[in-house]
Amino acid sequence: MASEFGKQLKISIFGESHGPAIGVVIDGLPAGEALNLSVLQQFLARRAPGQNRMTTARKEPDLPQILSGVLAGKTTGAPLCAVIQNTDMHASDYANLRDIPRPSHADYPAFLHYHGYQDIRGGGHFSGRLTAPLCIAGGICLQILGRRGIFVGSHLASVGPVSDWRFDAASVTPELLSSLCQKSFPVLSEEAGIKMQAEIDDARKALDSVGGTIECAVTGYPAGIGGPMFDGVENRLSAALFGIPAVRGVEFGAGFDAAAMRGSAHNDAYCCREGQIITQTNRHGGILGGISTGMPIVFRVAIKPTPSIAQEQDSVSLSRMEPVKLQIKGRHDPCIAVRALPCVEAAAAAVLLDLLLSESN
Amino acid sequence: MASEFGKQLKISIFGESHGPAIGVVIDGLPAGEALNLSVLQQFLARRAPGQNRMTTARKEPDLPQILSGVLAGKTTGAPLCAVIQNTDMHASDYANLRDIPRPSHADYPAFLHYHGYQDIRGGGHFSGRLTAPLCIAGGICLQILGRRGIFVGSHLASVGPVSDWRFDAASVTPELLSSLCQKSFPVLSEEAGIKMQAEIDDARKALDSVGGTIECAVTGYPAGIGGPMFDGVENRLSAALFGIPAVRGVEFGAGFDAAAMRGSAHNDAYCCREGQIITQTNRHGGILGGISTGMPIVFRVAIKPTPSIAQEQDSVSLSRMEPVKLQIKGRHDPCIAVRALPCVEAAAAAVLLDLLLSESN
Amino acid sequence: MASEFGKQLKISIFGESHGPAIGVVIDGLPAGEALNLSVLQQFLARRAPGQNRMTTARKEPDLPQILSGVLAGKTTGAPLCAVIQNTDMHASDYANLRDIPRPSHADYPAFLHYHGYQDIRGGGHFSGRLTAPLCIAGGICLQILGRRGIFVGSHLASVGPVSDWRFDAASVTPELLSSLCQKSFPVLSEEAGIKMQAEIDDARKALDSVGGTIECAVTGYPAGIGGPMFDGVENRLSAALFGIPAVRGVEFGAGFDAAAMRGSAHNDAYCCREGQIITQTNRHGGILGGISTGMPIVFRVAIKPTPSIAQEQDSVSLSRMEPVKLQIKGRHDPCIAVRALPCVEAAAAAVLLDLLLSESN
Amino acid sequence: MASEFGKQLKISIFGESHGPAIGVVIDGLPAGEALNLSVLQQFLARRAPGQNRMTTARKEPDLPQILSGVLAGKTTGAPLCAVIQNTDMHASDYANLRDIPRPSHADYPAFLHYHGYQDIRGGGHFSGRLTAPLCIAGGICLQILGRRGIFVGSHLASVGPVSDWRFDAASVTPELLSSLCQKSFPVLSEEAGIKMQAEIDDARKALDSVGGTIECAVTGYPAGIGGPMFDGVENRLSAALFGIPAVRGVEFGAGFDAAAMRGSAHNDAYCCREGQIITQTNRHGGILGGISTGMPIVFRVAIKPTPSIAQEQDSVSLSRMEPVKLQIKGRHDPCIAVRALPCVEAAAAAVLLDLLLSESN
Repeated sequence: MASEFGKQLKISIFGESHGPAIGVVIDGLPAGEALNLSVLQQFLARRAPGQNRMTTARKEPDLPQILSGVLAGKTTGAPLCAVIQNTDMHASDYANLRDIPRPSHADYPAFLHYHGYQDIRGGGHFSGRLTAPLCIAGGICLQILGRRGIFVGSHLASVGPVSDWRFDAASVTPELLSSLCQKSFPVLSEEAGIKMQAEIDDARKALDSVGGTIECAVTGYPAGIGGPMFDGVENRLSAALFGIPAVRGVEFGAGFDAAAMRGSAHNDAYCCREGQIITQTNRHGGILGGISTGMPIVFRVAIKPTPSIAQEQDSVSLSRMEPVKLQIKGRHDPCIAVRALPCVEAAAAAVLLDLLLSESN
Repeated sequence: MASEFGKQLKISIFGESHGPAIGVVIDGLPAGEALNLSVLQQFLARRAPGQNRMTTARKEPDLPQILSGVLAGKTTGAPLCAVIQNTDMHASDYANLRDIPRPSHADYPAFLHYHGYQDIRGGGHFSGRLTAPLCIAGGICLQILGRRGIFVGSHLASVGPVSDWRFDAASVTPELLSSLCQKSFPVLSEEAGIKMQAEIDDARKALDSVGGTIECAVTGYPAGIGGPMFDGVENRLSAALFGIPAVRGVEFGAGFDAAAMRGSAHNDAYCCREGQIITQTNRHGGILGGISTGMPIVFRVAIKPTPSIAQEQDSVSLSRMEPVKLQIKGRHDPCIAVRALPCVEAAAAAVLLDLLLSESN
Repeated sequence: MASEFGKQLKISIFGESHGPAIGVVIDGLPAGEALNLSVLQQFLARRAPGQNRMTTARKEPDLPQILSGVLAGKTTGAPLCAVIQNTDMHASDYANLRDIPRPSHADYPAFLHYHGYQDIRGGGHFSGRLTAPLCIAGGICLQILGRRGIFVGSHLASVGPVSDWRFDAASVTPELLSSLCQKSFPVLSEEAGIKMQAEIDDARKALDSVGGTIECAVTGYPAGIGGPMFDGVENRLSAALFGIPAVRGVEFGAGFDAAAMRGSAHNDAYCCREGQIITQTNRHGGILGGISTGMPIVFRVAIKPTPSIAQEQDSVSLSRMEPVKLQIKGRHDPCIAVRALPCVEAAAAAVLLDLLLSESN
Repeated sequence: MASEFGKQLKISIFGESHGPAIGVVIDGLPAGEALNLSVLQQFLARRAPGQNRMTTARKEPDLPQILSGVLAGKTTGAPLCAVIQNTDMHASDYANLRDIPRPSHADYPAFLHYHGYQDIRGGGHFSGRLTAPLCIAGGICLQILGRRGIFVGSHLASVGPVSDWRFDAASVTPELLSSLCQKSFPVLSEEAGIKMQAEIDDARKALDSVGGTIECAVTGYPAGIGGPMFDGVENRLSAALFGIPAVRGVEFGAGFDAAAMRGSAHNDAYCCREGQIITQTNRHGGILGGISTGMPIVFRVAIKPTPSIAQEQDSVSLSRMEPVKLQIKGRHDPCIAVRALPCVEAAAAAVLLDLLLSESN
C-alpha cells in the first residue's frame, strides 16, 4: 500500500495532482554529496509539460523547494524533503469524474480501494504529475551515480508502429547517453524521430493518443552488485518501473525476443579484454542471476497510450449504475512516453544507487 | 540481498542445488487453513524434472517434509517450514565450474558478489532447483486462494517461434484454468502444442535449447486490492516473477503491444452487467493504477533459452585470465519454460494472497 | 538508517532543527477518516515549548500545514504530508558545536556517522524538535483510534527522586486518561506534582536539568492483536519509543519490578466478568507473547535529564584533539520529560493503529 | 506478524515446541566466514536445559543440522538454514491447555489471534524453546563479530531481590566478557551468585519461580554505527530483545536510574586518550542519538518469573466460560533468567552485526 520504494535508500512520494503540493522524502542518502540545483532543474524540465506540441499545454514551473537534508549545497545525510507547490489547477475540469470513471485510468479501482474518499481531481495521487517528485529523487541519485562514473540514459525505442534503432547493448557509451539527455526528442535515428513526431501529431489531430517504448541503458555500473532470487537488480528495477503510471511491461537485455531464440544464439560468451572479463555480446542486459556483470545494463519499458483522449467514450455512472457517455476535457499529452523518459531514468538511478549503497564489505 | 519476498506473508527460500536440503519458510499464513498434501504433491509434480523428454532426466521425488506450522492438517498461523532433502547429486559434473563460468549463468557475477565462496555445484543457490520451494509456498497459497474463489492457471504462450493462442482476457474462466493445470503440456491450441514439442525436440537434438513465453491468468480476484505507485499489484508481481531464474520480461494486459496502439483502441470501456461494473474488453489485464479491477488478471512472462547447452562455448579461466572452451556436461532441459509454468503460478499465488491479507478495514 | 517506522502505516519524519522546515509523511492511513485540526493543534500544544517556566522559552507556534492526503476534512488514503516551517532560529548559538561536541548529545557520533556533513545547528535532525512531526502523526492516529474506542494517556510517573502514584493497571479508564490529557502538568497525585515542579525549578536554578519517567496507558485496545517473537506489540512499541530522544528505558506491565518477584505474585489469574475473559490483575501490562490480551496496555519510559545544561562542561576540540571547556548557550528545558508526554502517546498511537490495520481476516 | 528480524541480515525463526523440528533461516550473512561448529555447540549448551537443578530437567541435545549456506566450513553467502529435530516430547502434559489458558503465558491471546488453531503443545511457537534457533543465529553472528574484534557477554545482574555488582560501563573488557561466558552461573560477585542460587532453590522448593535481570555488554563495537530516530542501535536492540519470551523491560546505560539523576551527574564528559576521543564515564551505555560512540555498549533486560509454576492457579475454561483451578504439570525452570543469558547475547550479536553490515561507504 506504499508510495515508497527502496531499502537502504527509501524514497517516499506524496501529493495529489490538485492538492496544495507534491513532494518526496529521500531517506538514506550518503552525507556530503554535492547537489547541483540547476542540473537538477534541467533534468526536471525534461519531464515538465508544455515544452512543445508533443506534450500537454499545462504550465508548471515545478521548482522544487528543498526543506531538509541539504546544507551549504551538500547532503547532510538526514532525510531530504523536496516539495513542489501546485499552482496551475483547474479543479472544475474534473467535477464529474467522481461518479463517472475514465476508461483505463485508476478512477474506478481507486474508488473501491479508498471507499470513495480518494482525491479524484486530476487523478489525485494516481496522476502522472506524481512522477515529478520521482524525478527529483532520481535526479539527485543521478548526480551521485555520475560522480561514481555511472551514467543513465534513454531513448524512445518506438512510438506506435514506428521504431527507433536499438542500443548496441555491448558497446553503449556514456557519451551516447549524455547526448541523448540533451535532445528534446531523444532517439538514435533522427529519421525515426521525425516519423515518431508525425505519428504523435496524427494521434493528437485524431483526438487520440499513442503508446511507445523506452529503452534505457546504464554504463559504469560495477559488477557483482545485486543478489539472487527476489531482491536482485531486475526485481528492484521492475518493481520501481511499474510505479510509473502507464508502464505495462518491462524487459531486460534481449527480453521477450529471448523467448524466440535458441540458447546458442542467446548465450553471451565470455572473453578477456585489457585484463577485464567481459561478454562478447550483451543479450543478458548486464544482469545475470539478479547480479550485475559489469556490462551495460539495458532494459525496455512499454508505455501505454495516454488513456485521456478527447473522443467520447463509454463509461458508467457509479451512483446510478447505468451506462453514460464520457467526454474528457482538459489538457493531455498525445504520447505520454515522451515525458516518461526521465521518469524511467529516475527510477533506475534510485534503484541502482540503493543497491550500490546496500552492498557491504 | 534477500531470497525472500512478501510483506504480510513472507516467503523465505533457502538451499543450494547440491547441499543437504532446500526449503522454504512461510511466515504470516492465516491460521486454520486446511492443507491437502496430495494436491500439493500434484502441483509440485508439474515442476519436477524427468516427466518426459521435454525435461531433464534428473530424478527427484521432491517430497516436502513439513517441519512446522501445520497441526492436524491445518495451518497453525505460526511460520510453516517445508524442506526437501537433496538426494540425486552429481557434484563431480560441476568440478571445473569454479574456475570457468558458464555463459549466461550466474556463475561469474556470483563469484564476484560472494568473493568466490558461493556453492558453485549445480548453480548452488541460483539453481532452477530453488523453484521447488517456491512451488511449495505457491502451492499452499493456491489452495488458500481457491477456497476464496480465486484461481490461477497458465499456458505456454510460445516456444521459440511457435505461438499458442492468447487468453481472451475478458472472459477467461476458472474451468479453462483448471483444465490447463491438468495438461502435461499446457496450451490452448493443441496444434500449436504439437509444433512446440517438435521445436523443443529439434533444439535438444541440435545440442541446443529454446526459449518460450508463459501467459498466466487469475480469475475471481476481488476488485480494489493493491495500491498506488510502488507497492501495487504489478510492482509486487513483477518483483516476484523476476525471482524465477531465466525470466527476462514481464508484461500485463496488452503489455508491449499496448505501446503500438492508439488510446482509442487500447482503452477498456466500462459497462454494467448483472449489477456489476465490468470492462467490455480487458487490455488492462485486470489492474489499473496498481489496483485490481475485478476483471481477470492477465500477464505474460518471457523465459530465455536454457543457458546450459551441450555445444562447446567460449568462456574464460578466472584464475588464468585466458580464453578457454567450455563443454557443459550433465542433464539439462532443452526448454525450461515448460517447467516454469507452475513456478509462475506459484509466484503469482503468493503475491496475490499476500496483497489480499494486507488489505485492512 | 531510517527516520521511519511502521509497516502498514509508515511514518517518515524529516527536517532539521534550524533548516527551512520539519515534517512528516504518513503512508497507509485508512481513507475517509475525519481530521479535526483544532484537536490536533491542542495535542501539539502539549509538546510545544514556552508554555511555562518548566519548559524552554523558545516560541514556536508549530502550526502544521497539510500538503496532501486530506480532502474536505477527511483522509483520502493517499500519503498525508504535514509540514511545520521553522521560524524562530538562532543559528549563531550553535556556531562552535561543529568542533566541540556537547556531552550526552548526538553531536560526536553524528559527526562520525555523517563524516562531518550533518547539520549541527540545534542538533539538526537529532533535535527534540523533530518530535513535533511525530506528534502530528500520533495526533492523527489518536483521533482514528478514539473513533474505535481506543484511548491513550500518560502521566509523569517521576521527576528526579519524586514519584507519582502508578496507574492501577487493571482498572485504568478512558475518563482518567482524558483528564490527564487536559492537565498542564499531568500527574495522578497533585501533591507529587507540586513536588515535581519544585524539583524542576531547583534544577533550573542550579543551571542543571533533571530526568523523569512517563507512564502511559491505553484502554479499549482489542484482544488478539500483535504477534509472536519479533514483531509483536512490545517489539514495535519499544522500537518506536526509543526513537524519542532522551528515552533510556522501556518497560511493560510490572517491568523491571517483575524481575524481583516470584511467579505466584506476578502471574495474572484469569476470571470471567460479564461474559468476558479478563485477568484479575494486570502485571503483564495488557500484552502476553507479543499479543494484546484486552486488558489496558501499560508501559513506562525513562527519560534522561536534558543534556544541555548551562554549567560549564568538559569536552574536546575535534579539530585540535585537545580538551576544552564548553559552555552551552541558548534555551533549554530543565526537564524534557514534561514535553515528552505527548510524544510517548503519539508513538504509542501510531504503533497501535499500525498493528490494528495490519490485522487481517 | 513476523517471527523475523533484521534488515541486511534477516533472521527468520520457525517451529513449535512439540512439532517435528525448530530452526532458523539467516539471510544476508557475509560469504567466506568460517563457522566453528563446536564453538557454536558450546554456546548453545549455555541455553540448553538440564544442566543443573537451576534449570528444567528436560533433556534436549539440540544438535543443529545445517541444511544450506555453508560449504567446506565457510559461509557461502546464500541463506543459512539450521534445524533442530524435536525428540523429547511429552504432548500429553499439555492436553488440557487448549481449553484452560495458563496465567501469564501467551495461551489466551494466541487462542484469539489464531482463532484456536495454534499449536498449544508446550506453548507451540511461543515456547521458550524457540530461543534455541535464535541462539544458533546469534552464535554464528558472535563468531563473525569476534573476528572483527567485537565481543559480547552478560551476567545475571539480579535474581529476585538479590543483586550482583554492575559492570563498570566505561572500562568493561573483552577478557571479563569472555570469563563470564565460561561460568555456569555468570555473575561478577561470586557471593551474590551463591545467594542467587539459594533464592532460585527456595523458589523451586516453594513450587514457585523467580525473576531476574541480565546485564549485557559489548566491547570493540566501532563508533558511528546506527542512525537517528527509529532505526538506531536502541530501536533495533530493544525490538529484538523483546522477542525473547519473558522480557519485560530493556534499558540502556544508566537506564531508569537516569530518570532520577541531574544532567550534571548523568552527562558523560569527553576527553582524549591515546589519540582517541572517549567519554570519561559511560552512563550513555555506548549509544547517543541511536549511534554507537565507541564506548562499550551496555544494557539491561528484565526477565519475569517463569509463569509455569507448580502451585494451583485460577484460570477459566474457554469453552464453558467458567472459573477452573489449573495445576500445571511438566518440567519448568524456577528462574528462566539463567538460560536467557545466551539468548540476550544472541539477539544483541545479530542486531549489531546487521547494523555493521548495513553501514555503507
